[in-house]
Amino acid sequence: MTTNSPKSIIVIFGATGDLANRKLYPSIYRLYRNGKLSENFAVVGVARRPLTNEDFRNNVKKSISHFEDKSIDPDAFASHFHYHPFDVQDLSYYQSLNKLLNTLDEKHETEGNRIFYLAMAPNFFGTLATNLKSEGLTSTNGWTRLVIEKPFGHNFKSAKELNDQIREAFTEDQIYRIDHYLGKEMVQNIEVIRFANAMFEPLWNNQHISNIQITSSEVLGVEDRGRYYESSGALRDMVQNHMLQMMALLAMEPPIKLTPEEIRSEKVKVLRALKPITEEDVEKYFVRGQYDRGILNGEEINGYREGNSVDPESNTETFVSGKLLIENFRWAGVPFYIRTGKRMKKKSTEIVIQFKDLPMNLYYDKEENIHPNLLVIHIQPYEGITLHLNAKKGEYGSTSTPITLNYNNNGSNDKMNTPEAYEVLLNDCMRGDSTNFTHWDEVALSWKFVDIISNAWENTKAEQFPNYESGSNGPKESEALLENDGFNWWSVTPEEE
Amino acid sequence: MTTNSPKSIIVIFGATGDLANRKLYPSIYRLYRNGKLSENFAVVGVARRPLTNEDFRNNVKKSISHFEDKSIDPDAFASHFHYHPFDVQDLSYYQSLNKLLNTLDEKHETEGNRIFYLAMAPNFFGTLATNLKSEGLTSTNGWTRLVIEKPFGHNFKSAKELNDQIREAFTEDQIYRIDHYLGKEMVQNIEVIRFANAMFEPLWNNQHISNIQITSSEVLGVEDRGRYYESSGALRDMVQNHMLQMMALLAMEPPIKLTPEEIRSEKVKVLRALKPITEEDVEKYFVRGQYDRGILNGEEINGYREGNSVDPESNTETFVSGKLLIENFRWAGVPFYIRTGKRMKKKSTEIVIQFKDLPMNLYYDKEENIHPNLLVIHIQPYEGITLHLNAKKGEYGSTSTPITLNYNNNGSNDKMNTPEAYEVLLNDCMRGDSTNFTHWDEVALSWKFVDIISNAWENTKAEQFPNYESGSNGPKESEALLENDGFNWWSVTPEEE
Repeated sequence: MTTNSPKSIIVIFGATGDLANRKLYPSIYRLYRNGKLSENFAVVGVARRPLTNEDFRNNVKKSISHFEDKSIDPDAFASHFHYHPFDVQDLSYYQSLNKLLNTLDEKHETEGNRIFYLAMAPNFFGTLATNLKSEGLTSTNGWTRLVIEKPFGHNFKSAKELNDQIREAFTEDQIYRIDHYLGKEMVQNIEVIRFANAMFEPLWNNQHISNIQITSSEVLGVEDRGRYYESSGALRDMVQNHMLQMMALLAMEPPIKLTPEEIRSEKVKVLRALKPITEEDVEKYFVRGQYDRGILNGEEINGYREGNSVDPESNTETFVSGKLLIENFRWAGVPFYIRTGKRMKKKSTEIVIQFKDLPMNLYYDKEENIHPNLLVIHIQPYEGITLHLNAKKGEYGSTSTPITLNYNNNGSNDKMNTPEAYEVLLNDCMRGDSTNFTHWDEVALSWKFVDIISNAWENTKAEQFPNYESGSNGPKESEALLENDGFNWWSVTPEEE
Repeated sequence: MTTNSPKSIIVIFGATGDLANRKLYPSIYRLYRNGKLSENFAVVGVARRPLTNEDFRNNVKKSISHFEDKSIDPDAFASHFHYHPFDVQDLSYYQSLNKLLNTLDEKHETEGNRIFYLAMAPNFFGTLATNLKSEGLTSTNGWTRLVIEKPFGHNFKSAKELNDQIREAFTEDQIYRIDHYLGKEMVQNIEVIRFANAMFEPLWNNQHISNIQITSSEVLGVEDRGRYYESSGALRDMVQNHMLQMMALLAMEPPIKLTPEEIRSEKVKVLRALKPITEEDVEKYFVRGQYDRGILNGEEINGYREGNSVDPESNTETFVSGKLLIENFRWAGVPFYIRTGKRMKKKSTEIVIQFKDLPMNLYYDKEENIHPNLLVIHIQPYEGITLHLNAKKGEYGSTSTPITLNYNNNGSNDKMNTPEAYEVLLNDCMRGDSTNFTHWDEVALSWKFVDIISNAWENTKAEQFPNYESGSNGPKESEALLENDGFNWWSVTPEEE
């Protein structure tokens, strides 16, 4: 079923949108350039706007123009792209699209394989799926797959409704729910670091690890996404998907095999073992924040409530930190702290595994400052692995100083990072590998966990908002969350990033 | 008893020799420059040659001239140096030396503290110690210490005779037996890496470590030390002291405290747990080699037997590799391989801790090449720590590639390395810290272990000598020693050294 250069038509709904232009076309281009696409591929762009193929191809060429790979003729690449104007509600458009796909299938010899990529507003996901089936677009001689962008629902109830609707048209194994964090090189590395190295697994438990910290901070604010963000907030936008997925990868038991089914099964077990919290307890385990004015790079910056399309008394959180407990033999007693926010001090996604302190500190009498051992997995923008150890560094006497062992995965190749995630995921989807996509079971469990928190927060006005300055590390309650347990957030991104 | 800038007279026997000029004076200078000597210190150079103080001070200034630290007046430094001509056998010289020391003691206010540093031919060690006592040089109001350079005896019998003689004049805790490897920064780091990091100790045993390799290779040949070397060989010159000391530091149990007594006690326990071998079994566990002609840096090089003062049919080994077994609960079943030789491919002292393979290789089905996890402690000339792991590095699919996490202790500060060891050890001795000196118990056990091997080799002519080319990694039997156990020597010095 899987092949390295699969033949397929990729139909992109939302072809004129931001995601398509910034991520999908560049990713398809990179796959093409790297020989990961056979010549037998076509992309059909679909959107409301009436464009000619010519217009569309010019857009595509523009979106890839900054790659400047002289060895590839942009026109040859763009010739694989076709445009079809579309109205989601009007069935005649589905029929004409199907005709176009049949023609292209023959022309490009794509063997009836079709990917429907929904890169558009989520309110049409259900309708689209239903109509794709009713109008026969999913009946081909090859395979058909549905790729869905986030958000997948707004809470468990709406997610289940959406899922039920989609599942009438597509089976679970035809559905590829995107969580682009799962396409990131260093997130995929969590699994490899854990299971391809003999020295970590013996330490990977509550005997040797004191706590795990997952941070994903952004410097950007909500910008022009105020309307979407007001109905989402950081909890739904980041925690329900990315943060819980990273936690599951860190905490899961070693799977029997590295198949999508076995890995998913272990991730689902972690989510099932998450200690549920009651609405009354939410404030013990979770901290919400909303950014205020502040100074970033010397410039004065507006607060969240001053943004476009934002309620001046908005209750929406732009920051979340929380303490997750996994109630199983491996992790009982080890808090997993998560933290995510906008307008923070620096842009950084990183995971810190903090090992327990020494059972007996031989160097203590000498008033040495012994740093706990930390394994840091840098996800973005810096990609790498750092191990924080103690060693002798001075010339006299036997002292101990914190040192770091570093592995740098990419230098500072910031801009290439996110497109790469989409590139990887598109390739996975074409090959039929669903490992790095989220299964409905995961989505359902995540929403059920998160719903309790969002209910609690929606039912009580955050009187303290705004409660952190732009350019800070979030509200002070987030520091207290760890201090109460005797820990602190580590700030560990290498200086030379 | 210990203080950071101790007052003392240092009497150096062998003051015109190579060791004094190359190592001791520069080390004293660096201690002085770094504020580790009080102004209350004097150095008395003692040797057969008739020199004036002026001559001697000029020699000293020459030996430190390449430091060129403008902030320190070389004449002010040299003014602490005094010369006294000497004949080891003639008691009158001891008396006049004592008078000089008493005068200097008063002048520099060194409170009667004296270090007698024997940096000379070992055949006079015993006589010197006896006469120092009989002529009253060890009777002062302060402390007196004896520093002895290697070799400490030629085998257990001669070492015991020497020790008995010295012990009539000095107590064990006054005797500082130099093993300059113990002064090296990264050898001292073995203890810190092990006991100041919570993540290593749980892995530091036969459950998780498959074997440990200690290599100390030199590019230089015997040069003009043929006469000494013919009666020593690599086994006595390197294995009995440096290699066994490094093994003991790697294998010892965590001491109760970091005191010299507790650490020594643990090291002695390791040496006592060394599996003794019979003369008949020596060839199963040890490999000897002697270098032949070869090409090094494009130049043709003579073999060992062609060197000055070397028997043209010499049986002396210039290379040893061996397999040591430590019979205790922690290490049963884990071979410690040691290897040392002259005229080898590169100059490098390094320790490789190889962890066991994964219990289940999840990546095996994908034909990935999973490298075992290695912790490498680079002793010299490159100083650092490297951890060899596996991680995902490619863009597509979940593959595994060997990567390294590096900590570089010094860049490429080669020339500074060995003086530093002496600097550290001199400072330790002045402060009365004997941790990094070898106790008689250790010397005795090491000789007893090594004597069996040297007896076996002296009793059978090495028909195969010379058996390795200059510029190689030693004889092929050394490779076979590990291959028979399913292992191989790792060559891990970073390329960018």
